[in-house]
Amino acid sequence: MSTTLPSLKRIKGGVTAARGFQASAVSAGIKNPDATRLDIGLIYSTEPTSSAAAFTTNRVKAAPVKLSQTHFRNTAIRAIIANSGNANACTGLQGLADAKTMVEAVAGELKLRPREVGVCSTGVIGLPLPMTRIEPTIPALVETLDSKSGSDVAAAIITSDTHTKEYAVSVEIDGHRVRIGGCAKGAGMISPSMATMLCFITTDATLTKATLEKATLECVEASFNRITIDGDMSTNDTVMILANGQSGMPTIKRNSKGCRIFRQALQHVMLTLAQMLVKDGERVTKFVTVKVKGALTYLDAKKVAEAVANSALVKSSWNGEDPNWGRIIHAVGYSRARIREELIDIHYEDKPACLGGLQAETPMDQLRKIASKDAFTVTINLNRGKADYEVYASDLSPEYIDFNRSEYAYWKQARKDGLV
Amino acid sequence: MSTTLPSLKRIKGGVTAARGFQASAVSAGIKNPDATRLDIGLIYSTEPTSSAAAFTTNRVKAAPVKLSQTHFRNTAIRAIIANSGNANACTGLQGLADAKTMVEAVAGELKLRPREVGVCSTGVIGLPLPMTRIEPTIPALVETLDSKSGSDVAAAIITSDTHTKEYAVSVEIDGHRVRIGGCAKGAGMISPSMATMLCFITTDATLTKATLEKATLECVEASFNRITIDGDMSTNDTVMILANGQSGMPTIKRNSKGCRIFRQALQHVMLTLAQMLVKDGERVTKFVTVKVKGALTYLDAKKVAEAVANSALVKSSWNGEDPNWGRIIHAVGYSRARIREELIDIHYEDKPACLGGLQAETPMDQLRKIASKDAFTVTINLNRGKADYEVYASDLSPEYIDFNRSEYAYWKQARKDGLV
Repeated sequence: MSTTLPSLKRIKGGVTAARGFQASAVSAGIKNPDATRLDIGLIYSTEPTSSAAAFTTNRVKAAPVKLSQTHFRNTAIRAIIANSGNANACTGLQGLADAKTMVEAVAGELKLRPREVGVCSTGVIGLPLPMTRIEPTIPALVETLDSKSGSDVAAAIITSDTHTKEYAVSVEIDGHRVRIGGCAKGAGMISPSMATMLCFITTDATLTKATLEKATLECVEASFNRITIDGDMSTNDTVMILANGQSGMPTIKRNSKGCRIFRQALQHVMLTLAQMLVKDGERVTKFVTVKVKGALTYLDAKKVAEAVANSALVKSSWNGEDPNWGRIIHAVGYSRARIREELIDIHYEDKPACLGGLQAETPMDQLRKIASKDAFTVTINLNRGKADYEVYASDLSPEYIDFNRSEYAYWKQARKDGLV
Repeated sequence: MSTTLPSLKRIKGGVTAARGFQASAVSAGIKNPDATRLDIGLIYSTEPTSSAAAFTTNRVKAAPVKLSQTHFRNTAIRAIIANSGNANACTGLQGLADAKTMVEAVAGELKLRPREVGVCSTGVIGLPLPMTRIEPTIPALVETLDSKSGSDVAAAIITSDTHTKEYAVSVEIDGHRVRIGGCAKGAGMISPSMATMLCFITTDATLTKATLEKATLECVEASFNRITIDGDMSTNDTVMILANGQSGMPTIKRNSKGCRIFRQALQHVMLTLAQMLVKDGERVTKFVTVKVKGALTYLDAKKVAEAVANSALVKSSWNGEDPNWGRIIHAVGYSRARIREELIDIHYEDKPACLGGLQAETPMDQLRKIASKDAFTVTINLNRGKADYEVYASDLSPEYIDFNRSEYAYWKQARKDGLV
């Protein structure tokens, strides 16, 4: 992941890389009472913050999304509690009550107002949370908070991810060194249309709520909204960011040079985490950057990129390491963007596969060599205008479908718990 | 497939079931010169016709689609030539020249004007047609035309289909018995948005071009536009219909009772063929009717049905015989239709899986029994208005992706033929 900020450096850690942030995680046995994996985590700022968030645009929203939306609208959030193993979605009034209980328990232990706490859940949809196992863990979560446990939160929120995703940088803004770090989880229900997963970011930069909100929305649009694994958008997707000013810098002014540097660094962190999600998508074998150039408008470029990146046939061919351009151009055709077939060029990396809508003369072996790499770029030039867009996509594998055939085991556990 | 027309009877055959139609097919070795399977077919009306067609809305259109569109616009079509094994799509001026050569050769042998001939191709995209093998077959095609070879055309047009699809009915209109018959092919790149395959229908009813065109568009909307296998829309999709009046009936009047009967019978034939396509979709194991009820508008109902029927996660769960309603409601949520989560009911057949946005009390074993059947109906009631819509969908299987991983074999043959 390249960035043009000379002062930006990658540093260790994730949500506790910035000053004044603490974290903790424990095992509540949410999915399976006998398991010992971390599944509930807490993030806490020791000092007051500014905060911002972006939530799923799915019209079916999980209870924690509904509750957190109201909290982020009016208050500065100081703590975030998050669990995996159950999404607390489509759980009605009971689900809202459960989310509130989580928030109130955290607020009580931390001496905060409930509305200073954000809450997130991820996992299976439609089953009530096993609150009898969740509630008793809150005191231990608060008790074990420290500035070195960011990785435990990263571990507690993953579901079908095969590994944790953390990333942090430091960057100089207005003469002060500032840290931005975060963690995220995927790995199914990932599609480019706002935040299709959980992501928590902390920074010790100093910003007003308004400046932070603007930067967050712009950076989400350029990162999490540009990734796709399976084209499904979840009911729980959330990005939350807390800024506590503990770097000691003065407040970053709106539209200043410092503000631009912060935005670039934040986007770099979000894009790095977003790309990690795609690479660790469910049973993914390829990371494909789909670049669209030469569209008449930004929206046309976006339509083309998303149609190609979500086509089951295109994704199957990537899984087969087949540098197929016929399926790509057919997806371009049904994208509803304004295109002219005879102007379309398609490249695998720098090699043309299709020029002017026709098979190019690149030897097939060269194209196949590119398609056999773990990561490659497909560039589609519509040659009609100046707008461009890019999406970060994966292949679709037989193993993805195998993996997603059944959630019956979740239901069986919920039945054992007397919840359904 | 039920219909309410008392006089409608299923009869044997397909495109030659109606009077005055002939057909033939031969093997041109288009995909593989050593193979002997039928891959090029001809349909011919011995008498003048009215004709109508519906073509793909993909902006990348195959050469035969472009050519046939101009022919159908202005002329009554008497003959249709169709090949499988190569789509003649993204083949530029050479592709148009090749489609014209096919049309002119047929017209020459049959003593027709070229614009009285329709042409279709289906198969791989982006490789030129092996015209040296196609052109020499035309005289034999014309020579062997007869009224019993409809099934040979049905066989010649299939690609990844596992069997041929033919269907024919007779129905009484204005005191005359009329026949309508056809054949179709799938089986990948199937999505609900006009004609996602090839379908040829013939009838000995007597209609003006205008009446036939109106009936065709209405029936396509209610049949082929309502099926989805993989959500991909092809560059070649075409429905063609020829009516030659050989039943001896007088011309069907616009908006008459006879016209309504014809339309119902035509829709029955198209819907039967469309559903055959889904059932024989690439590596499909389930046929799922997705019914949406209670939407505020027709468009809302359609958005919901299509989002559910095209969700990779929903389709994976059907493959796993998992009566998952959480994934269905999440797709309802991102469909952009106006919904209220707490009003949504979801049934598998007549058993509620979700009521008012929450898990219903139906025992899981009963739902699983339904989801384990080869065909079942999922009904989504939004409980907001009176509009409804239904889509015929399949599951998505690991074997679909395996099957679609590579088209390299096609390219190797084209290279051997000196075409690329």
